[in-house]
Amino acid sequence: MTETETIAYDVVVLGAGPVGENVADRTRAAGLSTAVVESELVGGECSYWACMPSKALLRPVIAQADARRLPGLAQAVQGPLDTSAVLARRDDYTSHWKDDGQVHWVEGIGAALHRGHGRLTGDRTVTVTGPDGTRTVLTARHAVAVCTGTGAVLPDLPGLADVRPWTSREATSARTAPGRLLVVGGGVVAVEMATAWQALGSRVTLLVRGKGLLNRMEPFAGELVADALTEAGVDVRTGTSVTAVTRENGTVVATTDTGGRIEADEILFATGRSPRTGDIGLETVGLEPGSWLTVDDTLRVTGNEWLYAVGDVNHRALLTHQGKYQARIAGAAIAARAAGEDVVAEPWGAHAATADHAAVPQVVFTDPEASSVGLSLAEAEQAGHRVRAVDVDLSSVAGAGLYGDGYRGRARMVVDLERETVLGVTFVGPGVGELIHSATIAVVGEVPLARLWHAVPSYPTISEVWLRLLEAYRDN
Amino acid sequence: MTETETIAYDVVVLGAGPVGENVADRTRAAGLSTAVVESELVGGECSYWACMPSKALLRPVIAQADARRLPGLAQAVQGPLDTSAVLARRDDYTSHWKDDGQVHWVEGIGAALHRGHGRLTGDRTVTVTGPDGTRTVLTARHAVAVCTGTGAVLPDLPGLADVRPWTSREATSARTAPGRLLVVGGGVVAVEMATAWQALGSRVTLLVRGKGLLNRMEPFAGELVADALTEAGVDVRTGTSVTAVTRENGTVVATTDTGGRIEADEILFATGRSPRTGDIGLETVGLEPGSWLTVDDTLRVTGNEWLYAVGDVNHRALLTHQGKYQARIAGAAIAARAAGEDVVAEPWGAHAATADHAAVPQVVFTDPEASSVGLSLAEAEQAGHRVRAVDVDLSSVAGAGLYGDGYRGRARMVVDLERETVLGVTFVGPGVGELIHSATIAVVGEVPLARLWHAVPSYPTISEVWLRLLEAYRDN
Repeated sequence: MTETETIAYDVVVLGAGPVGENVADRTRAAGLSTAVVESELVGGECSYWACMPSKALLRPVIAQADARRLPGLAQAVQGPLDTSAVLARRDDYTSHWKDDGQVHWVEGIGAALHRGHGRLTGDRTVTVTGPDGTRTVLTARHAVAVCTGTGAVLPDLPGLADVRPWTSREATSARTAPGRLLVVGGGVVAVEMATAWQALGSRVTLLVRGKGLLNRMEPFAGELVADALTEAGVDVRTGTSVTAVTRENGTVVATTDTGGRIEADEILFATGRSPRTGDIGLETVGLEPGSWLTVDDTLRVTGNEWLYAVGDVNHRALLTHQGKYQARIAGAAIAARAAGEDVVAEPWGAHAATADHAAVPQVVFTDPEASSVGLSLAEAEQAGHRVRAVDVDLSSVAGAGLYGDGYRGRARMVVDLERETVLGVTFVGPGVGELIHSATIAVVGEVPLARLWHAVPSYPTISEVWLRLLEAYRDN
Repeated sequence: MTETETIAYDVVVLGAGPVGENVADRTRAAGLSTAVVESELVGGECSYWACMPSKALLRPVIAQADARRLPGLAQAVQGPLDTSAVLARRDDYTSHWKDDGQVHWVEGIGAALHRGHGRLTGDRTVTVTGPDGTRTVLTARHAVAVCTGTGAVLPDLPGLADVRPWTSREATSARTAPGRLLVVGGGVVAVEMATAWQALGSRVTLLVRGKGLLNRMEPFAGELVADALTEAGVDVRTGTSVTAVTRENGTVVATTDTGGRIEADEILFATGRSPRTGDIGLETVGLEPGSWLTVDDTLRVTGNEWLYAVGDVNHRALLTHQGKYQARIAGAAIAARAAGEDVVAEPWGAHAATADHAAVPQVVFTDPEASSVGLSLAEAEQAGHRVRAVDVDLSSVAGAGLYGDGYRGRARMVVDLERETVLGVTFVGPGVGELIHSATIAVVGEVPLARLWHAVPSYPTISEVWLRLLEAYRDN
């Protein structure tokens, strides 16, 4: 039996992904001693099996698509991408799945890194079981922040484990392109990975249970992305579920509820996420293992004084950037409470993650890119706002046509009729990924439409869509 | 002697570029009868010899540069662009220098197009001399709007006309790439045309009188663009002026004040603009021919009841998009006054071109792109603001590295310390062209920094530079 050491900190952070790192960064900046506990790679899902590798895979695909729309350059890029070069670059962006750089960063901010599996073991206490079985008890004077994120959910199909299905982890870290890839799902991971691997040499089939793709965005987003995937050669089948799957002589065979039989070399399930809270000792503090953790706007778990849940695990917005935002706010709230200072938790206060309700941005890195922020028309109506939505065909914008011939895209602005401010914006089209931040600032800043008329877009950029949206609102 | 017809309108617009068109659009929307007078192509400089052709030439250059920074795609785009295909696309975007589409648009809004040279001939009166010598007198019940723009200024060098120098018109409409092109100037036209023609096959020399390029932007903009031009093969020579130029056996020979002798096939002077007001009858209304026209924020000429000057000709901001903005405001102001309604001319009012003072955006379509809005640090200090500027190296942003290997770029935010709002922002780097509109909305919306912290940029986009800027301000 190994001896158990006890170490006292001000703050203990469970999980060293970007969210945990950012909580620690803020508590350390406030002078609070902080421990960070991580059982896998420091840097988390995002650095090794999500944002970074997926975007490294997708960026050349998007740049190639952009180039193909430009006479004078198009001819040169008709051939396939050099897949091995793209994968090598992806490996560089994941630091070859080594976390030395991130460990260095954590040490640099003066946080203590504890490698191992951390579990709550009562009030303000986390016990870490190290790789060698050593147990270390960490006490937290002020706060424990759970930043353990989510894992992929696999469907309940008999014998699925024997099929060795891909999840987002395998899809972003694969060393070669499978000859045939079957992607199950219609969300961001599904469409991004279908886009990437089709361009990198796989023949991709995309099975979507529902009617369309990207169903958390405005309907036209999924429609435009589905059209483009189909044109790129992806076999998109909506209204289709997998009912059984086996691997026979190395080949994946999936049976669908429409009676189809699909063979593939690999199958990716991008069918949802569940919180990584099953084995972190939630039961020792009166919470249910495996549950999403409900928090207030300061990211503190409901009914608790010292427990925070930050990032995906609280189910407010499953996006790295939004988790980092929450982390900045949680870290500041922890620091304020520790110092006995006022907590500014009214909407848009320094300690309130108000944007989680009003202005969550997202960019889907497909061709076309799909981006949105704030409320969709349906969400705004459901929330009881009196609204009007205006749409603009992006191809009517001079800068869009110049960006690439045959430009197809669409924009929607959802306007709060009471205040004449913008509740939500969606841009879908090539080259709109950086444009969405303009909408984020408009929504967050609650800038009235009358003032937005003075925000002149440069000619000829795609940003001129803002003018078309304002005109559409004025004239209709 | 031809008979002179007189036609009465509510509004007469001199010049049918984008600015004149937008004035007419707004006065027509208000139900005012409107005449538009144009001596050249309807659509103006921008459509045929500026924005449109220049961006059509530059877009493939930028896309190629982007692709060259991406392993897996880079190899395919090492060769030169197909110049004739790029020029053919440029020709399409200028409608082959035919204005049928634009004429159709003017007719569509119900404005009357008068082709010919328009001159003021007294109070609320414009006389048009048609191509056939016919004279038509147009009277304007409510307003005359001068939207005649600017022309290129050539230096006062003996024998220059015999050299047949290029101005922006020839540089954007040339049918072939000259073997050697000498560009004189360091502003937007100079750097954009040097970028385009170098990539399209010319050997370009850029002669800049001053110390650097793009000197109306933050200093690092010109530095980064100069470095990139040099790497692209352009011979950039600063602190150098042309003292004499001749054409000998078809070859241009320029002599410089540093004793140099440069041979070229064509020489482009991009050395400034002057107002096209020399022959529009200003003397008949007590103004000086050839002068810039000074206006108030409703775009009405100082001391005059009915004369407006909109766009470049008023010297507030020589940019198409800013002229169009002024046009919307001038049109609305003319309509309000005609109807006897209130004119809302306080700052940011519906009839005040406030953004001309506070938030003029600009994107220079070079590689890297250079973009800015609002006040530079030097401008803010000169204007008496108490300010602090923070800089961020764009290569520190994950989305920038993913955008392209070896990313180089820089951002600056100028903060008003009294109000903690943003007075100006500059982004220089690949892929930032659509990003500047986020800054425009922040400046125009006067969004406090405390609120901007809630405007979350999507990960991993280049927009995350906003976080780095806010952090730099907070931590320094």
